[in-house]
Amino acid sequence: MKQIDVCLTPDLLHLHQVENTIVVVADVFRATSCMVTAFAHGVNTIVPVATIDECRDWQERGYLAAAERNARRVDGFELDNSPFTYMNEQIRGANVAMTTTNGTLAITRSRQAVKVLVGSFLNLEAIVRCLKTERYDVMVLCAGWKGRVNLEDTLFAGALVERLKDSYAMAEDSAIMAWRLYEQGKENLPAYLANSSHIKRLQRLGIQKDITYCLQHDLYDVVPVLRGNALVAMEF
Amino acid sequence: MKQIDVCLTPDLLHLHQVENTIVVVADVFRATSCMVTAFAHGVNTIVPVATIDECRDWQERGYLAAAERNARRVDGFELDNSPFTYMNEQIRGANVAMTTTNGTLAITRSRQAVKVLVGSFLNLEAIVRCLKTERYDVMVLCAGWKGRVNLEDTLFAGALVERLKDSYAMAEDSAIMAWRLYEQGKENLPAYLANSSHIKRLQRLGIQKDITYCLQHDLYDVVPVLRGNALVAMEF
Repeated sequence: MKQIDVCLTPDLLHLHQVENTIVVVADVFRATSCMVTAFAHGVNTIVPVATIDECRDWQERGYLAAAERNARRVDGFELDNSPFTYMNEQIRGANVAMTTTNGTLAITRSRQAVKVLVGSFLNLEAIVRCLKTERYDVMVLCAGWKGRVNLEDTLFAGALVERLKDSYAMAEDSAIMAWRLYEQGKENLPAYLANSSHIKRLQRLGIQKDITYCLQHDLYDVVPVLRGNALVAMEF
Repeated sequence: MKQIDVCLTPDLLHLHQVENTIVVVADVFRATSCMVTAFAHGVNTIVPVATIDECRDWQERGYLAAAERNARRVDGFELDNSPFTYMNEQIRGANVAMTTTNGTLAITRSRQAVKVLVGSFLNLEAIVRCLKTERYDVMVLCAGWKGRVNLEDTLFAGALVERLKDSYAMAEDSAIMAWRLYEQGKENLPAYLANSSHIKRLQRLGIQKDITYCLQHDLYDVVPVLRGNALVAMEF
């Protein structure tokens, strides 16, 4: 039986098997939700980069640039970390370079995996359909917040465990924990998350609309997958 | 308001504040449950050591020696990691040196805290009473399993969060997660833990009796506290 493992933060990645594994990276608030939204609205490629300087280099080569630090847009960039900025015509066919506090780093740290997929509640069932075509074990890499675990990415991992649990064995307690938390919270995720630290951080920034949007399940059929240094879209 | 923080594994300790904090170390299966049981049965001091060689050095100086690796007793030592081996007359007034796979390391890595306490379900309410006399923030350090998070230590952390939540604010999502899991599982912890990886590991060793024992709440009033290089008992 295939296994599903959950890495609760990139700071624990050294304990998890990345090689011979398909990694699903989740940064629900908001990097991976943005990526999925962007591809659903016709973006061509997204290059995840680690630094703001790298992002600027791509911008000079004609890419649209998206930079976020501490949940705010960085000056001089076209896009930020709100999914709604990716819902416009300017986006169609564009190439985007993106750097965020946690999500893009989690993607670049997973490069030695068989395949790196970008997950969010928005494309949860598409991820499930995609994984069912694969023979490899799966690891969900939660992007967390500056190394710490967070509740929203753990809940996404739990949702994926729940939907895969008939065909994948849970590798370790982190998968059980994520699944149990999702089971407990799934009937009303916004209420369940109301006291989490990142929600409070985002609410101070007045982006409740983003939060509500990112918690919707199964809105899009796209699965962003890393090819070389860029993400491209597949449909499932 | 004081804060309660939860560090889910020693591999995440670099992200947490240890200085100016009281650390409660938990290795429910079975190191910290053994320590609490030992003090409740009259042990004088316990010196937690990192290596088997160090443990042997203390043994040569007249200490009783307890060594466990991968959940088994190490040859040549009097005691192991089963709490039942600490329930005998030989123990009364004795000094013990102890090394275990996860728990003793978690204690020695917390030395720069204001105070290091040893927690388990067996002395949960005594820990609560002890903390109520203190002005400092609290961090629960879950010993985990070789760097990974585990369910049982997280549940202990959640139990402590639950009992302290009127007087301590939850510092981050890890505290919320631990509390939510405990809330979900507390009515029947043995069943809730039945699929966890460490339970399976222990069941293969035939020590279901130890598991049942270690999940009992509030059996003893002792709180082991680190003084210099040795644990001694206080009563609350």
